[in-house]
Amino acid sequence: MHWRDGYIAVDWGTTNRRAWHVAPDGQIVAQFDDDIGIMAVPPGRFEQAAAEVRTRLGDLPMLLGGMVGSNRGWREAPYASAPAGMETVAKNILWIESGRTGIVPGISQQGISQQGAAGADVMRGEEVQVFGAIAAGLMAPDGLVCHPGTHAKWIRIAQRQITMFRTMMTGELFALLSRHSILAAQLEADVTAGEAFHAGVDEALAGGDVLSGLFRIRARHLLGEEKRSGEGASYASGLLIGCDVRVGLTLGDARHVTLIGRPDLCALYAAAIARAGRETSMVDGAQAFLAGMHQLVETL
Amino acid sequence: MHWRDGYIAVDWGTTNRRAWHVAPDGQIVAQFDDDIGIMAVPPGRFEQAAAEVRTRLGDLPMLLGGMVGSNRGWREAPYASAPAGMETVAKNILWIESGRTGIVPGISQQGISQQGAAGADVMRGEEVQVFGAIAAGLMAPDGLVCHPGTHAKWIRIAQRQITMFRTMMTGELFALLSRHSILAAQLEADVTAGEAFHAGVDEALAGGDVLSGLFRIRARHLLGEEKRSGEGASYASGLLIGCDVRVGLTLGDARHVTLIGRPDLCALYAAAIARAGRETSMVDGAQAFLAGMHQLVETL
Repeated sequence: MHWRDGYIAVDWGTTNRRAWHVAPDGQIVAQFDDDIGIMAVPPGRFEQAAAEVRTRLGDLPMLLGGMVGSNRGWREAPYASAPAGMETVAKNILWIESGRTGIVPGISQQGISQQGAAGADVMRGEEVQVFGAIAAGLMAPDGLVCHPGTHAKWIRIAQRQITMFRTMMTGELFALLSRHSILAAQLEADVTAGEAFHAGVDEALAGGDVLSGLFRIRARHLLGEEKRSGEGASYASGLLIGCDVRVGLTLGDARHVTLIGRPDLCALYAAAIARAGRETSMVDGAQAFLAGMHQLVETL
Repeated sequence: MHWRDGYIAVDWGTTNRRAWHVAPDGQIVAQFDDDIGIMAVPPGRFEQAAAEVRTRLGDLPMLLGGMVGSNRGWREAPYASAPAGMETVAKNILWIESGRTGIVPGISQQGISQQGAAGADVMRGEEVQVFGAIAAGLMAPDGLVCHPGTHAKWIRIAQRQITMFRTMMTGELFALLSRHSILAAQLEADVTAGEAFHAGVDEALAGGDVLSGLFRIRARHLLGEEKRSGEGASYASGLLIGCDVRVGLTLGDARHVTLIGRPDLCALYAAAIARAGRETSMVDGAQAFLAGMHQLVETL
């Protein structure tokens, strides 16, 4: 059994898990995804959870990326420090079983200054996608990446290295507001990149603040100023993503942003980034992840 | 029975109720507070809930202020439109029973522009405190008021009128993050106006954004960069209040801000406003409310 005879790549996140059997030439032989994220695995049961992956996909070497390497995961894979490239990450793979089961480390950024662009920050999983997107020629080796999500990340890339990044609690904040806030009823509708979304984005890009912008959703509702029912969700999403984009764009002077992640979220970010006068291209997150894992395996 | 023989004033909010029997000269004869906020009263039971107040404080005329006049309260008292002074509010009292039981209306601001300073906004209860503070000589008839709370309000006053205001979801956002977010464990400690609080305030006043500042609490924790355990709560509070203050100060060019509300919250805001180089004075919220109700009763 050797990596060059094929392997299993797993993107093991907080709430989901996605696994592929990859042939030596990089082609996908088989795959599955389920909701066995790390939060669904009791402490001490990760070995069994990983064995189940082999039962389904074959008794092959296995490389794991994502939150499985966090302090809530199987075992903590210490972060590599930014700036970091593919080689640094490969060298720091945490071997659960040498040469057979490894966890890709995340990347950390030490807090140079709380106010500076390079404050304390961490990522786990996105680095694999970034290196994969570059290796597969899906993005240039220099530039600015935006990775939307619960904790959205803006990542500056120079000479194939992750040099600086910033995480924004955009997705989590929207979810909290939708579920638990006084705005919950106004945020039930699906978010679409229409008039209300663009109004929120434009307000944020012009320097509008989240704290008062959000309350305005309630005020407009109480005063009957909504143009149409359900506009609150799109406006709130636009306001939050607009703030996210305004800050994220300060990480680089790029005219172009590469979006990596879920297509629906990437489309919303693309709409917001367009309002800021920048161009975007989109890279499928799973494709980038697989390309990154394949590159890492090549170094083994 | 006449107002000039004494009356009951009630500050009836979402989660609490506070009631006073006020003598003709404005002195307090008796008072109580309980947790029978409007959310604790089933629809159709407000008449009984009000009767219980009279049972405890006497069969007197009664004036109610706060969320009891909202669409979730006893009956909706339509907002008076800003700019509005004491007289406008008095004229718009909603009489449940003419001359015997009245609800003070809130004040609304129509949305001139989503981006403009005067976006759609509403208040209920704070207006009584503001007019009371002015009438009692606790603040000047022109100036800038900050009313901290779940939905903090910044209120511009000119010639005893509320001319413009802005609501910030600061308190609610902090509560959501403390209870439901990934930061919950880091936000358990008591907030104090020390080093971490000031760091958050300074970051916000310098233009720092909430979305990435909040995630930095998690990153600093994961990377062991916390200077002391529990600093996350104070830092988050400083960051949110700092953003609140940065925006609130744009409502007026005042060198001085009058804080009205809960003393503990007012003290945190005073610390943040001091970092912005402005002076503050504090007015007790209950005292201001009573002064405002007394002024309103004088007009009846």
